[in-house]
Amino acid sequence: MKPRAGNFFEDFRVGQRIVHGTPRTLTTGDCALYLALTGARHVVHCAQPVAHALGHRAAPVDDLLVFNVAFGKTVPDVSLNAVANLGYADGRFLTPVYPGDTIRAESEVIGLRENSNRRSGLVYVRSNAFNQDGVLVLTWVRWVMVNKRDAAAPAPAAVVPDLPREVAPQELAVPAFLRGDEFETGVTGGGNLWDDYEAGERIDHPSGMTLDESDHTLAAKLYQNTARVHFDAQLMRSAPAGRRLVYGGHVISVCRALSYDGLENVLSIAAINGGSHTNPTFAGDTLYARSEVLEKWPLPGRRDLGALRVRLVGLKNLPPAELASLDGPDGKPHPGVVLDLDYTVLMPRRGPT
Amino acid sequence: MKPRAGNFFEDFRVGQRIVHGTPRTLTTGDCALYLALTGARHVVHCAQPVAHALGHRAAPVDDLLVFNVAFGKTVPDVSLNAVANLGYADGRFLTPVYPGDTIRAESEVIGLRENSNRRSGLVYVRSNAFNQDGVLVLTWVRWVMVNKRDAAAPAPAAVVPDLPREVAPQELAVPAFLRGDEFETGVTGGGNLWDDYEAGERIDHPSGMTLDESDHTLAAKLYQNTARVHFDAQLMRSAPAGRRLVYGGHVISVCRALSYDGLENVLSIAAINGGSHTNPTFAGDTLYARSEVLEKWPLPGRRDLGALRVRLVGLKNLPPAELASLDGPDGKPHPGVVLDLDYTVLMPRRGPT
Amino acid sequence: MKPRAGNFFEDFRVGQRIVHGTPRTLTTGDCALYLALTGARHVVHCAQPVAHALGHRAAPVDDLLVFNVAFGKTVPDVSLNAVANLGYADGRFLTPVYPGDTIRAESEVIGLRENSNRRSGLVYVRSNAFNQDGVLVLTWVRWVMVNKRDAAAPAPAAVVPDLPREVAPQELAVPAFLRGDEFETGVTGGGNLWDDYEAGERIDHPSGMTLDESDHTLAAKLYQNTARVHFDAQLMRSAPAGRRLVYGGHVISVCRALSYDGLENVLSIAAINGGSHTNPTFAGDTLYARSEVLEKWPLPGRRDLGALRVRLVGLKNLPPAELASLDGPDGKPHPGVVLDLDYTVLMPRRGPT
Repeated sequence: MKPRAGNFFEDFRVGQRIVHGTPRTLTTGDCALYLALTGARHVVHCAQPVAHALGHRAAPVDDLLVFNVAFGKTVPDVSLNAVANLGYADGRFLTPVYPGDTIRAESEVIGLRENSNRRSGLVYVRSNAFNQDGVLVLTWVRWVMVNKRDAAAPAPAAVVPDLPREVAPQELAVPAFLRGDEFETGVTGGGNLWDDYEAGERIDHPSGMTLDESDHTLAAKLYQNTARVHFDAQLMRSAPAGRRLVYGGHVISVCRALSYDGLENVLSIAAINGGSHTNPTFAGDTLYARSEVLEKWPLPGRRDLGALRVRLVGLKNLPPAELASLDGPDGKPHPGVVLDLDYTVLMPRRGPT
Repeated sequence: MKPRAGNFFEDFRVGQRIVHGTPRTLTTGDCALYLALTGARHVVHCAQPVAHALGHRAAPVDDLLVFNVAFGKTVPDVSLNAVANLGYADGRFLTPVYPGDTIRAESEVIGLRENSNRRSGLVYVRSNAFNQDGVLVLTWVRWVMVNKRDAAAPAPAAVVPDLPREVAPQELAVPAFLRGDEFETGVTGGGNLWDDYEAGERIDHPSGMTLDESDHTLAAKLYQNTARVHFDAQLMRSAPAGRRLVYGGHVISVCRALSYDGLENVLSIAAINGGSHTNPTFAGDTLYARSEVLEKWPLPGRRDLGALRVRLVGLKNLPPAELASLDGPDGKPHPGVVLDLDYTVLMPRRGPT
Repeated sequence: MKPRAGNFFEDFRVGQRIVHGTPRTLTTGDCALYLALTGARHVVHCAQPVAHALGHRAAPVDDLLVFNVAFGKTVPDVSLNAVANLGYADGRFLTPVYPGDTIRAESEVIGLRENSNRRSGLVYVRSNAFNQDGVLVLTWVRWVMVNKRDAAAPAPAAVVPDLPREVAPQELAVPAFLRGDEFETGVTGGGNLWDDYEAGERIDHPSGMTLDESDHTLAAKLYQNTARVHFDAQLMRSAPAGRRLVYGGHVISVCRALSYDGLENVLSIAAINGGSHTNPTFAGDTLYARSEVLEKWPLPGRRDLGALRVRLVGLKNLPPAELASLDGPDGKPHPGVVLDLDYTVLMPRRGPT
C-alpha cells in the first residue's frame, strides 16, 4: 500500500522488532541549527578546543539533538497514530556522537495494554539508536497511547513492563577517555562544579524563551519527526487545541537550554530516568525552567567527575519564582507545567587542593 | 549606475548570454538547513553510508536545493522585474553536487514575445549551472513575464522557442557509478521499488505542512533569491495580494518533501519536464501533495535502475483526497492547486530473483 | 549563587578585566544559517573558489557574524542588566576568521559614569575577540546604560574615555596575503570598484526585508546573545514596547546585507568607526538601507585595494527614497531611522590599464 498508514494499536505485538528507516548523518550544520533553535550553550558542544582538552576527538553533538533525531526515526512506525506521548524511562546515553556520525534506530515492543474504552491502547517500546559502526549510542523506553484502527479488533493480553525508576549511578556510561580534571570553569564563567551542588537544592533559571510557529516546526523537521500534529495547521483546526502542537522533545531541548544558567558546567547527559509532558505547548508560549537536584552521586573509579540527578521542570508563561506548587488546584499537574523530566548529568569535580 | 535596477523586457535580445554573479559553495550547513526548511527525508541526501553504498563519494546535495540555488543566481538578471514566473521546461539534472562544490550560473535568452498590452512581455531563458570544475550540473528553461521600462519602447520580433514536452528516457543522465543493485529498502522502510509502480497510479500523500513567514523567507534567503515580492511586506501591502508571496521554488521543495510517503525510494530527480505555479502561496497556507505516475521507463543498459515520470500536484489548504478535479468551476486551475509539476525520478529496480 | 544575576552598574570598576565564557567554534553550519537569516551575499563569504583566488585559505566567516558572536559572549557579563546599548567606537577587524576557528572574548572596563537619576549609569568597555591560537581577531568599544542594583550605592568617579572618531586608514588591518588584483567583477555582476565611488555619493539600496519573530530570535540564539529582551515575550509584555526587541547587531547584519546592491564588490569590513541604534526594531518591521560614502582612502603600500568609509543608515518601514532628512521634526533622529553606522570597508581597485 502507498503510502503506509503507520501502525495502529492492533498492529503491535509484544516482542516485535522494528527497524526504522532513514538513517541520518549529523553534521556541523545540524549542530549550528540546533543551537539557533534552542539557545543551547553547553560548552563541550560549542567549542572544539574545550572538547579536545577533555579528551573528545571533536565537539560532540548535543545529547538532546541525538535523542530528538533518534526519536524522530521511530515516529513513522511507532507513533504516527498516537494520541499522546505519555512517558519515558530508562534512557541511557552510552556513546558520544560526533559530526559525521550516522544514526539509525530500531525498536522492540515491550508492552501493550488496551484502554478500557477499547478505542486505543498503550504501546511500550524500547528504542535503540546506533552509529554507523553499529555501536549503541542511546537506548530509551517510551510509552504512547495509540489509536486502534478498529475498536472491535481483539486486544492482546496486557503486558506492562517493569521499568526502573532510575538508571543507577554504577550503570551510567562514562567515557574512559573523558578527562574531567582538565576542565576549567573559566571556559563557561560559571564557577560551580559537582562539589557545589546539594541534593534538595532548587535553581530557578532566569531566562524565558518564547516559541513561534516557524522555529518549533523547523526543529521538528530537523529531527525528521513526521507526526502531523506539529506541522499541519489545517488538520489541527478541527483538533481540540485548534492549532499545531509543539513537539515535546523540542520542549525538553529548550527547557534544558534555559537551565544553562545555574548548571553551566554540565558536560553531558548520562541518563533520562523518567519524564512526562504534563501539558501541551503552543506557539506563543514562553517557556521557563526550574531545576531541582534530586541526588548527588560520586562515580565508581572516578575522582574527576560526578553525577547529578536533576528534576527539570518546564513551565509555560509562568516564571518559576511564581510557581507555588507543581500541582494544580484539581490535583492534576499545574496548567503552567509542561514538562517534568528526571535526568542525570555528568559534571567535573574539584581537584585535590 | 548604483544600484543596478535589473533588466526590463526591452533590455533582452534573443541570443543574449548572461553570466550571473555570486557563485555559491554549498556545504553541509546548507543541507541541514534545507532539511529543516522543507522536511526533506530522501535517504541519499541524509545518510552518508547509504550514499557510499550506492557509489556516491558523499551524500549528494538535494537536487532541489541545487535547483533553487542555481535559480536564485538568475533572479537579479532575469526576473527582478518579473510579474510572474510562468513555466519550466527541459530541466536536466546532469551531475550530482556534493557539499563543498560551488555552483555558478549562466543564461541565454532563447525567446521573447511582447504582450498585446505592450506593458510587458515573455522572456524565455535557458539557464545552465556549473560546478567549480566547469562541469554542467543542471540546465533548464523557464519563461517569465517581465515588465517593460517604457511601454512605448519598440518590441523585438516575437521568437517562441520550440520546447520538448519531456526529457526522453534515453536522454536522462544516469551516473555510471551509481549502483542501484546495492539499495536496500530497509534503509527507508518503504518497500516499493520501480517495479511496484504503474503508469496511471495515483498517490495521495498523507502529510500537510503549514508555511509561516519566517521559514519561507529563510528559504528564499538561503537560495539567495532576491525577488522583492518574497521579503518586503511593506512593498507588498500595496500589491494585489497585500502580503509577501512564497517563492515558487520553495513550494516545489516542500511538495516534493511531502511526496516522500509513497515514493520513499526515489534516489534522485533526473529531469523537470515541465511545470507551472498555478496559484500563489502565502504564509499560513498548508501545503499537501498528490503524485500521479505518468510513465514508467526502463533505462537503456541498466537493470538496476528505472525512471518514473511523475506529475506532482501541490495543493493548499485542501487535502488531496478532497480534490475532485484539478480544474476549477471556471475552467481555470482549481484555486486550491498551487503547483503542477511534471518531473522524472530514478528509482532502484528489483534484482533478479 | 546560582544562577548568576549579571553585573549591575556598581559591580564595575575602571580597569576591571573580564574573561567571558563559552568559546564558540564557528562552522560552515553557522555560515549557512547566517546567510539564511540575513540574506547576505558578499561573494568572499559565499564562494570558496573566489576566496582562494584572493589568497584566503577558505571562504572567511562573514565579519558581522564574527562580530555578533563575539558580542554575544560579552552579554552575560556586561549587558545582562543593560537598559540600552548606546554606541560603538574604534572597532577593528584584524584577522579573518575561517570555519573551524574558535572565538572567545575578554573585556576591560574603560569608563563609568553614573546617571544623574542615580538609578543607572554608563559603562564603557573595550572588548577583544581572540581565535583558538590567541590571535586578536576583533576589538571594539561599546557603551551601555546599566541599571544599578541599589540606587543608594555610591558612584565611582566618572571616567569617560577619549574615543577616536574613526579608525585612520593607515591603521586598517589589510591581510598581506590578500590579492585584490585577482578580483574579477564578473563574480558578482556588479561593475563598480573602489575607483568608481566618490566621497559624498549616496546609494539608496532597493531591497527591503521584513523581520519576523522566529528569524530574529533564531539569529540572536545563533549569536548566543542572552539578553532577555529579545526572547521573552512574557517579560516584555510589561515593558514599554510591549513585545520582544530585535537585537541591534542583527539589525546591522540585515542592513549591511541589504546594502549589497550598489556595493557588490566589498571584500571585508575593516573597521566600525562608530554607530548607534537610534530607534528600536520589532518583528513585522521592514528594514531598508541607504549608504553614503563619507571618505575614499587609498591604502599605504597597496595598489590593489582601497578603503571606503561608509555611513550605513538603516530604516524601518520607510524606503530610503522617501526619507527627506535623518532628523525628525523634534530634533531627535527620524522615527523611521533605526541604525546610523559609520564603518570602513575594503574594495579592489582597478588595475593599471
